[in-house]
Amino acid sequence: MIELAVFGAGRMGQIHARNAALHPGLNLKFIADPIDSPARDALLAMTGATLATPEEIFADPAIAGVVVASSTDSHAELIRAAAEAGKAVFADKPISLDFAAVLEVAAAVEAAGVPSMLGFQRRYDAPFRALKQRIDSGASGRLETVLMQSRDPSPPPASYARSSGGFFRDSAIHDMDMARYLLEEPVARVWATGSCLVSEELGAIGDIDTGMIALTTVSGRIATLMNSRRGPMGYDQRLEAFCAAEVLSVGNQRLSPLAISAPDGETLQPPMNYFPARFAQAYADEMDAFARLIAEGTPPLATMADGLEAQRLVEAAIRSLETGLPVDFAPDWRP
Amino acid sequence: MIELAVFGAGRMGQIHARNAALHPGLNLKFIADPIDSPARDALLAMTGATLATPEEIFADPAIAGVVVASSTDSHAELIRAAAEAGKAVFADKPISLDFAAVLEVAAAVEAAGVPSMLGFQRRYDAPFRALKQRIDSGASGRLETVLMQSRDPSPPPASYARSSGGFFRDSAIHDMDMARYLLEEPVARVWATGSCLVSEELGAIGDIDTGMIALTTVSGRIATLMNSRRGPMGYDQRLEAFCAAEVLSVGNQRLSPLAISAPDGETLQPPMNYFPARFAQAYADEMDAFARLIAEGTPPLATMADGLEAQRLVEAAIRSLETGLPVDFAPDWRP
Amino acid sequence: MIELAVFGAGRMGQIHARNAALHPGLNLKFIADPIDSPARDALLAMTGATLATPEEIFADPAIAGVVVASSTDSHAELIRAAAEAGKAVFADKPISLDFAAVLEVAAAVEAAGVPSMLGFQRRYDAPFRALKQRIDSGASGRLETVLMQSRDPSPPPASYARSSGGFFRDSAIHDMDMARYLLEEPVARVWATGSCLVSEELGAIGDIDTGMIALTTVSGRIATLMNSRRGPMGYDQRLEAFCAAEVLSVGNQRLSPLAISAPDGETLQPPMNYFPARFAQAYADEMDAFARLIAEGTPPLATMADGLEAQRLVEAAIRSLETGLPVDFAPDWRP
Amino acid sequence: MIELAVFGAGRMGQIHARNAALHPGLNLKFIADPIDSPARDALLAMTGATLATPEEIFADPAIAGVVVASSTDSHAELIRAAAEAGKAVFADKPISLDFAAVLEVAAAVEAAGVPSMLGFQRRYDAPFRALKQRIDSGASGRLETVLMQSRDPSPPPASYARSSGGFFRDSAIHDMDMARYLLEEPVARVWATGSCLVSEELGAIGDIDTGMIALTTVSGRIATLMNSRRGPMGYDQRLEAFCAAEVLSVGNQRLSPLAISAPDGETLQPPMNYFPARFAQAYADEMDAFARLIAEGTPPLATMADGLEAQRLVEAAIRSLETGLPVDFAPDWRP
Repeated sequence: MIELAVFGAGRMGQIHARNAALHPGLNLKFIADPIDSPARDALLAMTGATLATPEEIFADPAIAGVVVASSTDSHAELIRAAAEAGKAVFADKPISLDFAAVLEVAAAVEAAGVPSMLGFQRRYDAPFRALKQRIDSGASGRLETVLMQSRDPSPPPASYARSSGGFFRDSAIHDMDMARYLLEEPVARVWATGSCLVSEELGAIGDIDTGMIALTTVSGRIATLMNSRRGPMGYDQRLEAFCAAEVLSVGNQRLSPLAISAPDGETLQPPMNYFPARFAQAYADEMDAFARLIAEGTPPLATMADGLEAQRLVEAAIRSLETGLPVDFAPDWRP
Repeated sequence: MIELAVFGAGRMGQIHARNAALHPGLNLKFIADPIDSPARDALLAMTGATLATPEEIFADPAIAGVVVASSTDSHAELIRAAAEAGKAVFADKPISLDFAAVLEVAAAVEAAGVPSMLGFQRRYDAPFRALKQRIDSGASGRLETVLMQSRDPSPPPASYARSSGGFFRDSAIHDMDMARYLLEEPVARVWATGSCLVSEELGAIGDIDTGMIALTTVSGRIATLMNSRRGPMGYDQRLEAFCAAEVLSVGNQRLSPLAISAPDGETLQPPMNYFPARFAQAYADEMDAFARLIAEGTPPLATMADGLEAQRLVEAAIRSLETGLPVDFAPDWRP
Repeated sequence: MIELAVFGAGRMGQIHARNAALHPGLNLKFIADPIDSPARDALLAMTGATLATPEEIFADPAIAGVVVASSTDSHAELIRAAAEAGKAVFADKPISLDFAAVLEVAAAVEAAGVPSMLGFQRRYDAPFRALKQRIDSGASGRLETVLMQSRDPSPPPASYARSSGGFFRDSAIHDMDMARYLLEEPVARVWATGSCLVSEELGAIGDIDTGMIALTTVSGRIATLMNSRRGPMGYDQRLEAFCAAEVLSVGNQRLSPLAISAPDGETLQPPMNYFPARFAQAYADEMDAFARLIAEGTPPLATMADGLEAQRLVEAAIRSLETGLPVDFAPDWRP
Repeated sequence: MIELAVFGAGRMGQIHARNAALHPGLNLKFIADPIDSPARDALLAMTGATLATPEEIFADPAIAGVVVASSTDSHAELIRAAAEAGKAVFADKPISLDFAAVLEVAAAVEAAGVPSMLGFQRRYDAPFRALKQRIDSGASGRLETVLMQSRDPSPPPASYARSSGGFFRDSAIHDMDMARYLLEEPVARVWATGSCLVSEELGAIGDIDTGMIALTTVSGRIATLMNSRRGPMGYDQRLEAFCAAEVLSVGNQRLSPLAISAPDGETLQPPMNYFPARFAQAYADEMDAFARLIAEGTPPLATMADGLEAQRLVEAAIRSLETGLPVDFAPDWRP
């Protein structure tokens, strides 16, 4: 039985701790979270884990791996410490909001040689995986353009927005990763535009809440991202891949198959509430991938390097937004 | 150019007269309708046809064929007279509400040897044709059960219901024909149940407005019909064919591809208003089939004999409804 | 913490044992299954429960309730014994294949006064619950007709069919329950027809695999059931409720929101594989209802009496199938 | 009866001539087309119109209006001549591929004071009209972003592409018009990217076949256009309008409501073949608008000025594509 620790008892920590506890090959030994809360206590009770400090966790030789699901500003330090302690690391995105720190951490993990993976759970989601496999099979022909749409149900408070690094850093990184994953080719140019149309509170702190990003690859293929802090229908998270022979799409997963027909039309259910529900199975499969990474060395679907590259694209989009000009995105581009 | 006459300037007469006038190989010479109305005048103006009496039409040697789309109680007499005058006949259903008259008319048409066809337009509708062709191709495997649902947007006035022969005679005949068309096998048993749930007015004249009919064929295959005078979503007209390898369905055709998504779900457009809109192309194709029947002798998709057989099944359903017992439906069963 | 035992480590036993183990208010102490199998061992390991005999379970005063998910022929005896031992009972359908035994067991449970519920999980399924609540709210108007379709992905072996009591007893009982649940009115007449169209093996033991049942209530409302051992698209389980003002439907839940568009059309994913996947949440909610029944006396959505009534309707359908005649279904009708 | 002439007997000329001939208030007197072809003869026969030269048409005082549906390079000259002859003009897009000529022609039409309208038929399409009306009603809240996707079934020959002015001029003008129509606000910035991914033949003449355009309005609202010469599913023409309270969409109109379900999923019909089928009703309504413009002076939904503005946006997109930089789109911007 592989022994694990989870950092963080917030929204993501709860998802990962629960999946670790349910996994037949994993034993969740510790949970670390500095804030005493009823949610933390409930999580400890449900999973049977023990509360511990990072120091205790890193010092315990029984611990084979750690899950970093704590607050964003603690990610970099915990990942580095885990790598130095020789623990396998499964970290949620982003590695850091400071790109220099991202580079350092990724280098440190590589230097330490510990198994590591990054929490781009969409790669583990069944329909996204099936879409990727279909393209890889050749049945769809060459992927020409891809459209990704991501809308949160409603804008977060300004406090969250500030600590998450702003709109693009918070919301576009998964789409950037998916664009890279599907296009499998260097991006040559990044263009972004954005505005504050939804939340005056976000505008007051200088953030945007509505954005569009276009990536052009070296061979001229195009990825378009539409992102918003507002989804009038709820959580709106879709992808369409336009290939030479087929169009593949992952639409929203509806809450349920109930429908109501009346004189003004047939009403289908709205999408599942938010990402924890929509990606429940993906998170469980991600934990299973972490177990197999530790046990058998099976490469994960997303690495620290993928995290770094996605973040580099986000930084380029931010640069384009700030300058009003497209960014020529050479492989050595740095923000 | 084939010269035609249309009997009737009501709802069906207008559809047929318009299609005849638009057909490149047909010339609509006459329209007959005893009732002086603005609709009749408009139809004459639009089509360029001349008003005539049945006698004038039957006596005109230039007339190759007639379309019987007049009031139901005049069908039998006009079909018989047309056959005797040697004209090709395209008659709307039903031949007559009196089954004895149906038998006589069908025999008279056959004896006269004139080309004839019956207005079961669903056989000409593109999705129904594609469904039939798919089954005939063998790709779907053996058809095992078929479900047909037909609901009018709202109940008719009692006056209409009375003159149309009651609910099953009015509404189930198309479904009976489609069941025969798809199953291609004798029916062995007919069971029907029905009630007056929608319109007190219809109940007051002894009619029903909600019904269910089950047909079992000699080899045990089953057709289920659900019919109602009320479609809360509008005109609800669907078929599902359950085959060994596939399920084929013809759903409702929505008014338009507009959709509205809001927090309580996504609302799609209701079905097209009613059969004239839903089957517009089918009626045009039916007229083309009449032209080809006259010009080249191409057999139509629905004959007088099909009309007789569908009506025989309707009469058996009425018998079952009245007696509360299933009807053993031998090939020589008569109401 | 409420202590429970589960009888049966087969397909249903695994679902219930797992849900009991995951429930925060329940402790799964025992699992009973006479057959030594790897699945039983895995279930014990996963849930942390101990293997026990029925005698040990009934004798343990700490056990507050038992879940009867063993083979069908053991249901009646275990339910009766549990009631006599004063344990709360949550039994899967059917109570027994022998209707006389059903009556006896239901009476015994009532006499013992123990809390009890029957496993009609569809009543706990979110879309079916929402449909029921919508009708109860009055927004839909009076329910007039209801259509239920249930098709298994493929026919079972003859051995299963024989032990499950035949096609209607095995497959129609959930639909009968749903008809009663939604119509809330006595059934006045039952008509059934059926054939063996799918599996020669089933025909060889005298069973059918394709059926249609019509229920007419005392006020003339109609429920239509279409059932088959074959679903070419997979597990096909749908309901449509035709009300005066709205049509409510619960369609199939697709495997995932992936779609593939090509020149011959857009292909959406097939339904979820089978009932354990489709009703996963419903089974968990059912277990929660059992916990609340024991802890707080909250009435369950389905009782032993509901099981008896659904089975009575099934027996009437079988009678109709055998006699070829409709069954007048008085409240005291007995097979 | 208003007398009309149609210039052009090609694809668009046939649509307009047929609609004019069917319109109860219009009489199609002349068709002009310099090329002797069977299609031209068939059109004359079907409509009953007479072949004429532009000079004859402009000189006939009975002609109240003309429809310019000839080859693109003749539009400007015919519109100007019609205006000078005092005829009402209904012209298909584009006015000219030369923007200077567009300005001149628009000025000439305005100076002549003749009634005029431009063939942006999407404004007349029922679902697009309903979407626009819904936004105008206020029910949807403020429109924030709009996504338009337009894909032809397959790339045209290079000869067509050359004479149509290149990809953006040919395919993006309808989307530009729809963006203006819905956003009702000046565009402040235009960004475009594009590539040749589909047709080597098009690349060889320096054209692109895949493009993405982003428009940002003065208040920061964003329109995204995705265009391609290839639609693997057929003609793919969709719009989504993301408003504060609702998302409105116009999807593709499927060929028919036939569906086929098999183990690998449910296949729905592909979109209608191409724009003549998809917009058949819109073209008829457009002709009716021309009739009402002439008869009653009812303003059309799209004017020459709308054509000029849409084309100005197209030219800005082409400029962005050529320079790799966004275009600051002041109201007086000229290519």
